[in-house]
Formats: sequence, C-alpha cells, structure tokens
Amino acid sequence: MGYDRAITIFSPDGSLYQVDYAFEAVKKGWTTLGIKTKSAVVVLGEKKKASQLLDLDSIEKVFLLDDHVGCSFAGLASDGRVLIDYARNSALQHRLIYDEPITVDYLTKLISDVKQMYTQHGGVRPFGVALIIGGVDNGVTKLFMTEPSGQFMPYQAVAIGQGGYTATEYLEKNYKEDLNVEDTILLALNALKSTLKPGEKLGPSNVEIGYASADTGIFRKLTTEEKIQYLQKLG
Amino acid sequence: MGYDRAITIFSPDGSLYQVDYAFEAVKKGWTTLGIKTKSAVVVLGEKKKASQLLDLDSIEKVFLLDDHVGCSFAGLASDGRVLIDYARNSALQHRLIYDEPITVDYLTKLISDVKQMYTQHGGVRPFGVALIIGGVDNGVTKLFMTEPSGQFMPYQAVAIGQGGYTATEYLEKNYKEDLNVEDTILLALNALKSTLKPGEKLGPSNVEIGYASADTGIFRKLTTEEKIQYLQKLG
Amino acid sequence: MGYDRAITIFSPDGSLYQVDYAFEAVKKGWTTLGIKTKSAVVVLGEKKKASQLLDLDSIEKVFLLDDHVGCSFAGLASDGRVLIDYARNSALQHRLIYDEPITVDYLTKLISDVKQMYTQHGGVRPFGVALIIGGVDNGVTKLFMTEPSGQFMPYQAVAIGQGGYTATEYLEKNYKEDLNVEDTILLALNALKSTLKPGEKLGPSNVEIGYASADTGIFRKLTTEEKIQYLQKLG
Amino acid sequence: MGYDRAITIFSPDGSLYQVDYAFEAVKKGWTTLGIKTKSAVVVLGEKKKASQLLDLDSIEKVFLLDDHVGCSFAGLASDGRVLIDYARNSALQHRLIYDEPITVDYLTKLISDVKQMYTQHGGVRPFGVALIIGGVDNGVTKLFMTEPSGQFMPYQAVAIGQGGYTATEYLEKNYKEDLNVEDTILLALNALKSTLKPGEKLGPSNVEIGYASADTGIFRKLTTEEKIQYLQKLG
Amino acid sequence: MGYDRAITIFSPDGSLYQVDYAFEAVKKGWTTLGIKTKSAVVVLGEKKKASQLLDLDSIEKVFLLDDHVGCSFAGLASDGRVLIDYARNSALQHRLIYDEPITVDYLTKLISDVKQMYTQHGGVRPFGVALIIGGVDNGVTKLFMTEPSGQFMPYQAVAIGQGGYTATEYLEKNYKEDLNVEDTILLALNALKSTLKPGEKLGPSNVEIGYASADTGIFRKLTTEEKIQYLQKLG
Amino acid sequence: MGYDRAITIFSPDGSLYQVDYAFEAVKKGWTTLGIKTKSAVVVLGEKKKASQLLDLDSIEKVFLLDDHVGCSFAGLASDGRVLIDYARNSALQHRLIYDEPITVDYLTKLISDVKQMYTQHGGVRPFGVALIIGGVDNGVTKLFMTEPSGQFMPYQAVAIGQGGYTATEYLEKNYKEDLNVEDTILLALNALKSTLKPGEKLGPSNVEIGYASADTGIFRKLTTEEKIQYLQKLG
Amino acid sequence: MGYDRAITIFSPDGSLYQVDYAFEAVKKGWTTLGIKTKSAVVVLGEKKKASQLLDLDSIEKVFLLDDHVGCSFAGLASDGRVLIDYARNSALQHRLIYDEPITVDYLTKLISDVKQMYTQHGGVRPFGVALIIGGVDNGVTKLFMTEPSGQFMPYQAVAIGQGGYTATEYLEKNYKEDLNVEDTILLALNALKSTLKPGEKLGPSNVEIGYASADTGIFRKLTTEEKIQYLQKLG
Repeated sequence: MGYDRAITIFSPDGSLYQVDYAFEAVKKGWTTLGIKTKSAVVVLGEKKKASQLLDLDSIEKVFLLDDHVGCSFAGLASDGRVLIDYARNSALQHRLIYDEPITVDYLTKLISDVKQMYTQHGGVRPFGVALIIGGVDNGVTKLFMTEPSGQFMPYQAVAIGQGGYTATEYLEKNYKEDLNVEDTILLALNALKSTLKPGEKLGPSNVEIGYASADTGIFRKLTTEEKIQYLQKLG
Repeated sequence: MGYDRAITIFSPDGSLYQVDYAFEAVKKGWTTLGIKTKSAVVVLGEKKKASQLLDLDSIEKVFLLDDHVGCSFAGLASDGRVLIDYARNSALQHRLIYDEPITVDYLTKLISDVKQMYTQHGGVRPFGVALIIGGVDNGVTKLFMTEPSGQFMPYQAVAIGQGGYTATEYLEKNYKEDLNVEDTILLALNALKSTLKPGEKLGPSNVEIGYASADTGIFRKLTTEEKIQYLQKLG
Repeated sequence: MGYDRAITIFSPDGSLYQVDYAFEAVKKGWTTLGIKTKSAVVVLGEKKKASQLLDLDSIEKVFLLDDHVGCSFAGLASDGRVLIDYARNSALQHRLIYDEPITVDYLTKLISDVKQMYTQHGGVRPFGVALIIGGVDNGVTKLFMTEPSGQFMPYQAVAIGQGGYTATEYLEKNYKEDLNVEDTILLALNALKSTLKPGEKLGPSNVEIGYASADTGIFRKLTTEEKIQYLQKLG
Repeated sequence: MGYDRAITIFSPDGSLYQVDYAFEAVKKGWTTLGIKTKSAVVVLGEKKKASQLLDLDSIEKVFLLDDHVGCSFAGLASDGRVLIDYARNSALQHRLIYDEPITVDYLTKLISDVKQMYTQHGGVRPFGVALIIGGVDNGVTKLFMTEPSGQFMPYQAVAIGQGGYTATEYLEKNYKEDLNVEDTILLALNALKSTLKPGEKLGPSNVEIGYASADTGIFRKLTTEEKIQYLQKLG
Repeated sequence: MGYDRAITIFSPDGSLYQVDYAFEAVKKGWTTLGIKTKSAVVVLGEKKKASQLLDLDSIEKVFLLDDHVGCSFAGLASDGRVLIDYARNSALQHRLIYDEPITVDYLTKLISDVKQMYTQHGGVRPFGVALIIGGVDNGVTKLFMTEPSGQFMPYQAVAIGQGGYTATEYLEKNYKEDLNVEDTILLALNALKSTLKPGEKLGPSNVEIGYASADTGIFRKLTTEEKIQYLQKLG
Repeated sequence: MGYDRAITIFSPDGSLYQVDYAFEAVKKGWTTLGIKTKSAVVVLGEKKKASQLLDLDSIEKVFLLDDHVGCSFAGLASDGRVLIDYARNSALQHRLIYDEPITVDYLTKLISDVKQMYTQHGGVRPFGVALIIGGVDNGVTKLFMTEPSGQFMPYQAVAIGQGGYTATEYLEKNYKEDLNVEDTILLALNALKSTLKPGEKLGPSNVEIGYASADTGIFRKLTTEEKIQYLQKLG
Repeated sequence: MGYDRAITIFSPDGSLYQVDYAFEAVKKGWTTLGIKTKSAVVVLGEKKKASQLLDLDSIEKVFLLDDHVGCSFAGLASDGRVLIDYARNSALQHRLIYDEPITVDYLTKLISDVKQMYTQHGGVRPFGVALIIGGVDNGVTKLFMTEPSGQFMPYQAVAIGQGGYTATEYLEKNYKEDLNVEDTILLALNALKSTLKPGEKLGPSNVEIGYASADTGIFRKLTTEEKIQYLQKLG
C-alpha cells in the first residue's frame, strides 16, 4: 500500500502500480481479439449473457471509427466509450482538415497519447481498457492493441480479456499470414470458440465481428445472417 | 479543479473501490424496476412509508425526461435529482438544436458519460445512483440501466434496490416478450409484489408507475385511479 | 478511519460518512418542527437559554424567505445562515425574472441542490444543517425537510434536533390533516412542550413560530403577545 | 486556491474539530468582555504585561469600526486584525453606497459570514479569534459575540479569554438592565477586577475601554485620565 | 503527529504548530535587538564568523526600509529578504501615492498582514523569521517586533535569536527611557556584549547598527569607524 | 516510507525517490545504445519478440527528429513517444524561426528541460524513459543520453536497458575514436550481440539502426537489406 | 498547478526538512569552489570520469552568465541548468532595460529569490543545487554561494560538493587576500588537488576554470592549453 494513491507514481521497481491495476480490469473483460492477414483484418468481441434478461442483441462490442477502421475493447466499458468517442471525433476532424482518411497508425497513436496523459498527470486515473484497433491504409491491413499505459504495439493477431490467454495460444498455433478474408474470419471465430467452457455454445448473439478486406478497405460488421453462416461453417 | 487524494483509483485487482461502494448505495435504495416488451416499456418505483408522517403522495419516484422517455432510480435521491436535471436539459436542447426528440439510447449515453467522468477525475465522488431509463424510439421500446461506473446495458427487464434480487428472480420466470401493454404493467406490479415481506401491502401510495406503449410512443404516469384499478387486478 | 478525509467519499457499505456526521450536528441542534394541515403550515423553532446573559429575544430562529414561505433549521447556525441568504436571493430573483413567486417545491429543490453539490465535490464539507421549509403555493400548504445530503422529503409533520424524537412521537399520535389554523399552531406548541424536561417551562422567549394559512398564503411570525396567548391556551 | 486535505471536516459526533480547536485559542487570549444596558454598551479588553519591556500603552485592544460601533477580541491577534480590517472596510463601503451607517447586526453578520466561509472550504483554517462587537443602532444598544464557527449570538453581557469564566460568573450575579452609563462602565471594570489573581493590580495601562451611550450613539474610547478616574471609583 | 501537515492548522490546544515551529527558526538565528528611548531608536544585528572564509564585512544585517525606518531580523535569511523587499516596495509606493512617508506602525502592520496570510491559507508555509523594526514618526521613536504568526507588538526594548534570552535580561535591568542617542547605542552594544561566551570578542565586523534620533528622524547605519569608536567606549 | 508520495521530493540522503524509481523502468527496457566516433554517430535499438504474434517489423525503435539527428530510448514507450513528439516539434519550429537546423546539443537540452520540470513540480510524475540522441552539427558527431532526472551527459558510447551493463563493458573494451562509418555500425551491432543469451540470434527484425556520418550530416535508418549485410559481416 | 501535501514545512526544531535534504544532494555533487582576492575571482568545477566512455571534454561545469560574471554548481545538474538559464535571461534583460551590466550582488539575489520561492510554496520541491557565483563589479571582485534555502553569503573562498570539506580546510590555511591573478588560479587548483584520493591525478579534462581579474572585469574560461600550463606549475 502507499504506492497507489492520488497520482500514478512509480514503485521502487519502476512500475506504475495504477497502470498495472488498470490492466487487471482488462483481464477481467469479455474476450476480445483481432487478426491481421494480407487479405483482411478482423476484430471480434464476445458478448456474454451475464444476466438472463440482458438484451444481448442491443449490446455493441465492435465499433466503427471511420469507413476504413474499427475497434473492440476489453475492460471498463464506460472508459472504452470515452476513447471511442474521442477516436471518432479525431477521424472526422482529420477528414475535414486534410480531406483524406486518417491512417490507422496515427489514429492509434492519438488514442494512446490520451491514455499516456492519464498516467502522468495528477487528479485522474488511467483508462482501465485495452483497445484492439483494425483497419486498412492504402490496401495494407493494420492491427494494433493499445494498453492502459498508453503503449501500443502492432500485432499479427492478439487476444485479450478473460479468454485472452487461451485464444492467444490457439492463434499462435493456427495463424497464417496468407489466409483469405473468409478464413481469417473463421480463424477469429475458432479462436473464440477455443475459449468456451464445456457446455457453452457460440450463437450469433454471443459475438460481434467487424472486418475490412485489403481489397475494399471498408470496415463493416457482419449481419446476424452472416454470423449464422460463419458459425455453421465452424462445424 | 481539485487534485485531491480521494480520487477514484484502481484496487490491485482492477476494481474501482469508490464505484463499488457507490453501488452499495444503490442496493440500499427503494426497489425500482423496468420491463420492455414489444408493446410497451414500463418503469416502476416503490415508495416506502419510512416515517409515519412522510407525505408519500407528494414524493415523486418516476420522472418524465421528455415526451417519449422517463426514468426511475435507486440510490442517493439527491444524486439522482442532479442527473435527471441534466437529462431533461439535454433532451430539451436536442429538440431545440435538431428539431426532433433525442433517442433513448443517446440520452442514456449522455447521462452515463457524466457518470463516467465522475469516476476518472479527482476532486469528485461517483454518483451513488442507478437509473432505469425507458422510452420509445420510432415505435421501438427501449430499456436501459445505468450503473455508478457510467456503464449502461440494455435489458428486457431489470430490477434494482432492496428488492432487486427477488424481483429479478420473479421477472426471469415470468417475462415474455409479447405481453400487451396492460399485462406488461401487471407484470411490473407483480414483480414488486413479490418483494413484499409477509404482512406488507401494496397501495396506490406505495408505487409510482410510468409507461410508454410502442403505438403511441408517449411516456406517461399512471393516475391514482389507474393504479387502484391495476392493483385490484393483481388479486 | 480513512473514509472521512478531504472529500465526501463512500464507505464500503455505500454511506457518505461526512454526510452522516453532518447529520449528527443536526441532532444536537435546538428542537425545530413543522406541521402541514389543510388549513395551515406552521414552522416552529425552540430557543434555549444556553447562557444566562444570552439575549434570547434578539435571537431569530424562524426566517421569512419570501411573502409566502419561511423556514427554521437545526444544526450549525452559521451554515443555516448561508443557505437562508441563498434562498432569499433565489426567491427575489425569481420574482424579478418571472414576475411571480417561486413555488415552495422549487425553492426547496434549489437549496437542496446546493447541499448536494457540497457532498460530491472536493475542497468543501457538507452543510451541517437541516432546514424545515413551509409555505403555501396557490392555496395549498407545503412542508419539506432538507437533509445535509441534499435529499428533501415532503412531510405532514416533521421534528428534528435534540427533541426531535420525542416531538415526532407526539405528532404521530396527535396529527390530523383537518385542523384549523389555531389548532395547528397549538399542536406545534404542544409537540414542543412534550420535549421539555421536568421543571422546564415554555415562555414566549423560548420559541419562535411562523405560519401561513392556506387562505391568505402569507407567511408571518407570531408576535410576543400572540405567543403569550397561545401558550396560555396550552394549559 | 488550494484544495488541501487539511479541510475543516466533521467528526463522527458532528463537531468540526478545527473549529473546536480554534476556540481553544480564544480561551487562551487576554480577558475581553462586553456589557449592554439600556443606556450604554461597553467593550473592554485587558492588556497584560507579558514581558517587562513590552510597551503596553502602545497596544490597542479596543477598536473603532465606525462612529457608532467598536469591538475587542480574544484569541490570535493577527487573525483579529484581519477581521477588523474587513469590518472597517465594510462599514465604510456601506456609508458610501447607502449614505447611512451600517447596523451593528448587519456588520456582525458580515464578519461572521467570512468566518463561516473559512470553516467550510478547503485550503484555509478557521479564524482563531472571537470578537465582541458593541454599538448603537437608532438609540438601541447592541452587543454580539462572534465565534470561530461563524455563529454569532446577542448577549446582555459576555466575557471571553483567560478570565472569561470568572468574569461571566461575576456578570451573571451583578448585571442589571437599567444601569446608567457610568455604572455600566464600572460593572465592566469590576468584572475584569474579579478575574485578577491575588496581588495583581489594575492600572490604566492594563485595560482599554470603549463605550457608546444610547443617547449619543457615538462609540469612543476612554482616555487615560478617564480610566484613572473610573479605577479610583472601584475602591 | 498529523497536526503539522500541508497547511497551518490548529492543534487540539489551539496552537498553530507550523507557526510555533517557525519560531524555533527565529530562536536559532543570530542575536538581534532593538531599543527605543525618547531620544533614539536603535536596531542592532550580530554577525557571527560561522565559517573562517565568510566575508563578514559584505554581509548586511541591518536594512533601511525608508529614510526614517530600518530593521533587522532573526531566523531564515531568505525569508527575511522577501519581507524586506516587500517593505521597501510598500514604503516607496506610499510616498508615490500619498506624497508622505509611511508611518512605522502602518509599515509594520503591512509586513505582519503578509505573515498572517501565510499562516491561514493552504499551499504555503509561515515565514520563519521575526523582524525588529525601528523608526521615527513625527519626532516619536517607534519599535516593533513581528512574529511568524503575523502578530506584532510595540516594545521599549526587545532581543531575539540565540542570545535573545540573555540580552533581554540585560535590557530589563539597564533600560531607561531617557537615555540620549549615544547611550542608547551603547546600551544596545552592551546588551549584545552580555551574550558573548567567555573568550569571544566584539569587533566592528561582528555587528551592524542602525539608529534614528528623534530629532532628525533619519535612520542611518553606523560606519566602521563609528562602530570602532563605540566599541572602545564599552571598555 | 512517506518520501515517495504524490510529488517528487527529496529523501533524507538527497535523492529524489521517484526519479530513482523511474530509472528502474529504464533498466527494464529493451537494450538501446549509441556510439560516437569521428566519422559517424550510431543509434541502435533492440526489438524483442516479446510475444509470438507481435509484428516486430512494424515496431519503430529508432526515430528521426530532424534531417541530422535521431534517437532511440529505453523505458516506458508511451513516455518516450511524448518526448519524441516534443523534440520533432521543437526541431521544426527552430527551422521555421531561425531558418537553420537546431543543434543536437540544444535539442537535447530542450528535451531535458521538460524532464526536469516533471521532477520539480507537483501533480505529475517524472518521465520513465532515457533517450539516446545522436546527430551531427557542422560535421561534428554528437551523442547524448538524457536521464529521467533531466540530467544529460555527452558520451563516446553509451548503452542502457536490460543489456546495458554487458554492452557497456563490451564498448569500454572495444571503443576506438577513429573507426570509420561501417566499423562504427559493426561495433554497435557487436555490442548488442554481446548481450544475447546462449541460443538467442540476432536477425534484421530484432534491431533498428540509425546513423549519421560526419561527412553527410544526414541521419538515416538502415534498410532491412543493409541490416542483413551488416549482420552477415558480424560472423 | 497542484497544491500537494508534500510542501516544504517546518520540523518541530524549526528546520525545513526538504531544504536540509536538498543540501545533501549538494554534498554528493562534484567538488566546486570559488576564491576571491583583490586581483581576481576564480570559479572552478571538477569533472569526474564517472564512466569510462563519458565524453568529459564536452561537459561544461563553469558557466558564463554575462561578460563579467560566471558560476559553477554542485548538486543536481538539471536543477542547476534551470537556474543558469534564469540567470542568463535576467542579466540580458538588465542590459536591455538599464543599458548597463547587472551587478553580481543583484544577480545572486535574483537567483536566490527563485530558490526561496521554491521552499515556501506548495506543489514544488526546493532546488537541489548550490551555486558559486563570481564576478567583478566596477573593479571589485565578488564571490557568493547560494544555498537550496535561498540564503546566499559572500565568501573570500568557498568549496562545496564531495571534496568541499577538505578543500575548505586547504583554503582556510592558504588563502591570502592579496594574491595576484595567477596565484589565485593556482590556489584554486591546489585546493582541488588536496581533495584527490591517493593515485588520482588532475588532468585538463578533470577541471574547468573560469576567472575574472579585477583589472579587466571580464569573466573568461581557461583554454585547455592554459589549464595544462597551470597544472604543470602545480608541481
């Protein structure tokens, strides 16, 4: 105790406790993952029936940030919402000022800069959320994960939240860089499926999926019908 | 701005203590519940005769936020009042600026954004109140519950406060999506009735009920006469 | 310990310690009570000869807020003064802006909003005072009690301060909704009398009484002569 | 502005510790007292030869605030000076704006409002001083004592500081409402005399006396010659 | 512990710990003293050869504030410098605005008001320095000592710092009100001499002396030659 | 305990704990090193395959600040990013205002001044990052390392991060001032190689290298092809 | 701005802990010394080969503040840099405003005033650095040392840092006021040499020397060649 008060300060071993604790909130979130292949980038968020009367279909877990980029997150939902609002605004302003879409890299950096600021200045706490951001810049797929510290890293595939460890193991074994769009989506679903406990089933209400193909460069979410079709292919 | 040390910070397991404690205030509040069916959304707040000379009839527990949306809350009454004022102002400004009613989703998000802000910045404490917000957007019923953290979720039915656990059990057993308006209201009253202790009775002074039918899209409160009629039908 | 520092924060069970402690200041104040019947609203404040050379007659315990509304309080006198100043200003501004008297409900809400603010923001402490506010809106009597938390409730009768518990018991037994003006005032005095210790006497210097009849809608304080007459009728 | 944690907060029993402690500073101050009769109000401050080379005659303990009102204080001299400066400014401004003298009641309220503010907001400590304020409004004598809490009370006679307890006892036994000006002054001196330890003597350097008669309504301080004459009459 | 943090707050017995601690800094300062007789006011500051290579002659311990007033201090030298800067500015502005010299009383009050402010507001510490201020107003000698609390007192003679206790004893035995200018200066030097330890000697480098005679009303410092002459007269 | 809270304060032995702790974050970073010879300055950053699906090739560890100067860092990546943004802006503004490139010395000082500020003022924590800055001013190679304290030092060669100790030992044995460009780069790679654990290999994805030759004064990064060529020469 | 609780406060014995601790940082710094004779003032700073690849020759330890004045420091280098920037700006502005050089005394006071401010106000820590400032005003040599407290003293000779104690002893034995310029510089070098441990040698890279002769009044630093010549004369 004593190292977690008031402002995010260093512990004797050079950690920022509040940032480490914020990452615990990420680990407790619903499973979220992203995959980047040459042909597509996919972002997937699980939705758990936490309460029987929860209206799962009305919950949004994958978010469009601009035509070519979307994201999901694990951690505190209200914190995630704040950053998504900020990202959408930033992407919009970029179009207005420069008359061209913001790159996925730069958008990720802007979000991460806000996060960093909340780890260095007093009177605030870090954001308890990690975002997986996927999109396409000039035909090239991009995938990043931003941490509560404000650090962001590029990934070929990444999974966080409750099932993050299991899904990562699955992805490490099965990821290939040259999957086509459909197989990339199926890989994402299979990775999520690998995290299910015995008896749990994956229905269209339990997952939201967004993707952008390198060809079109448009980020869109799967419809319920599309989700059902993909789930049938999982076998 | 106050850079006070009593800021809402993370515990080592990634919780926000002050937010968790604020939820305890919600649990101690009077029972409040909401139900959304295809034909109607109902919001109900209990009123307890905490003191014999309390003027129960003058106490308001269901609040109109705009023509098509209303709410109730459990937790600190004074905190709830602040958020209701904010919601009413937001709804009004939306009409002035866009010349159309604010959607229930967006109004819920605005309230929740204020709540989130009070969990991340210093010199304030979180709101010790959860709101149940119900309304109709373009003929579709909507029901949300906002938590002290700023998180909000869509529900088919939700109950909070002292009788929240019991009423939720009742609703899980009896909820059907295709009840008509009258049956939706009766379900709400029965759910409240299920929380009464032996000997307790439910009179028109003990409950306030607001509802909006999908047809009219108008949120209104039941009159005392209407409440009496519904209570007689409970048997 | 630890939960009562710097800013008003939640305890693990969802209480706001500083607000609870502020209520203790109310309980230690001089007895104050209010009664609302169909024909009149009465506000009464006791004045105790705390020191032999205290000039009791010069002490004011019932305060006019506007022509139709007055109040008394229990708790920290200096805190009460601040809120009364605020209330008077608000009532005056309301007349200037809208050219009509402020309603008792709205005036009570304004005072309570200030109180709430002092429980949620840093760098201040809650108000250690509870106000009993009585008045008449369009021929209808109104009576509210505002708590340090910023919560306010409508009452038929309410008593706070050192003798609050005893006076409340008396009122619960003797309150009737259809007393006339004179009997309402006598009920208030009898309620105060019920709190006296053996040997204590009630003289005109020991009590201040304000009332508004539903007919006139004017809040006025009893003169010493009137107080003597009422005290004689107590028997 | 500094929102420091050393704010004046409530103790579990509803006290404001810092305010209570500030009162201890008052109790350790030099004896100060005031008396109000129908014909005059007197304010008296003792001056103790704390150090042999202290230039007692140059020390001021009774202060004119305006033509018709003066004061003395017990407690922290530097805190008292701040409030006296404020009072003098307020009285002067009142004359400039309204072209009439400020009433003693209102001036006392203004001083007390400042004191209250220093007990409720962060980054400051309460004033460690109690003022005894005496004056004449339209031929009526007024006497108030303001506490560190910002509470003020009207008194017929009041004594504070080291000898406050003894002087109060003396005043309770000997106070009469209808003393003439001279006897009021003599009562004040006798009350101070009652606090002397065996062997201590009261010389003109040890006391400062201000008074206002109801007739003239002018507050003035006794000259050394007048003090000597009064002391001789004490016997 | 706990009462000495962050801001200057009251201890349970009504002291201001930080102010008391600041006075300890004064007690550890070099001996400083002042004497006021009818014919002159003298301010004297000792200079100790704290280190062998210290350039004692370049150190200033007596400061002119205006033509007619000067001061010395004991305590934190850097704190003293800030107050002297402030005093010089205040005296200069007074001349500019009112076209007449500031009185010694008022200048002392201005300095003390700054000191008081640093004991009541957060985010600062009190000044760790006591000033002895001497001067002449209209042919009358004035002498004050200002404490860290912001309290100031008039003295016939006063001594502070390491040798303060011994010098005060000497002054109490030898002070006479009607010494001429030269004898007043010699008394000051003798008082300082009384504080020397066996073997210590008083040279012109070890002391700085300023004085103002009632006749001229000009505050000036003794030259090295004058100091040597006075030291020879000490015998 | 107690010396590491809220603001960067001194410990009893004159250290700044938070600054020392921030340096621990540097020590845990990826190995980073710089070498300055007469003919060239080289900055090298290691990239570790922390996770199997990390997209190492997309990670940037050497950053151009202006045409003639670049840097790498060890420590918190998000903190480093903030300083690099600041440095790029400063270099750009310098060109705009003075129409000439900023010197490496001055740019290093500007970055370090920001760092110092974050160690002396409240409400922030120090930067948990050390930068190695290399460039050429008028044909002269420059190399600096900036510490979390804001101190910066010129070096002939310097290595920090996990392999900093081993690499420094290697550099101390092998550094020569008159290496040519190619040998300087090879020395840097060999120094990094010396830090590898048994079995670890150095591939083009594991290292980023920037350099500026004294001749051209242009800072550029090695392409993957160039990196492969240099790695082959290591043997 | 953050008014944090870590303000520099008094300890019960009248010390300012943070200031005392800051002085410890000074004691751990590299040896720095100054000497003032009638013919010259010399400022010398040692440079230690703390790390083998440190580029000692590029490190600056003596700083010109204006044509006629320079300084060195011991303690936190980054803190020293801030004060030197401030001093240079102040000297420059003085020339611009008054068209004449700033005196060494006044420049020293300006620097010290900044230091004092950082010991009395919240949200900052004191400067962990002591400056030795030397220069010539109108043909007169000046030498000051400023402490972290903001106190500054004139010295004939002064040494601080790791070798401060030993060098001071050497200077106390060997200082003479009437050395010529060359002998003053040699005395400074000999004082530094006295602090070396057995086996340590003094080369031109290990020391930086600045001086101003009373004749020219120009402060300049010795070139490497000059340093070599002086070192040879040491024998």
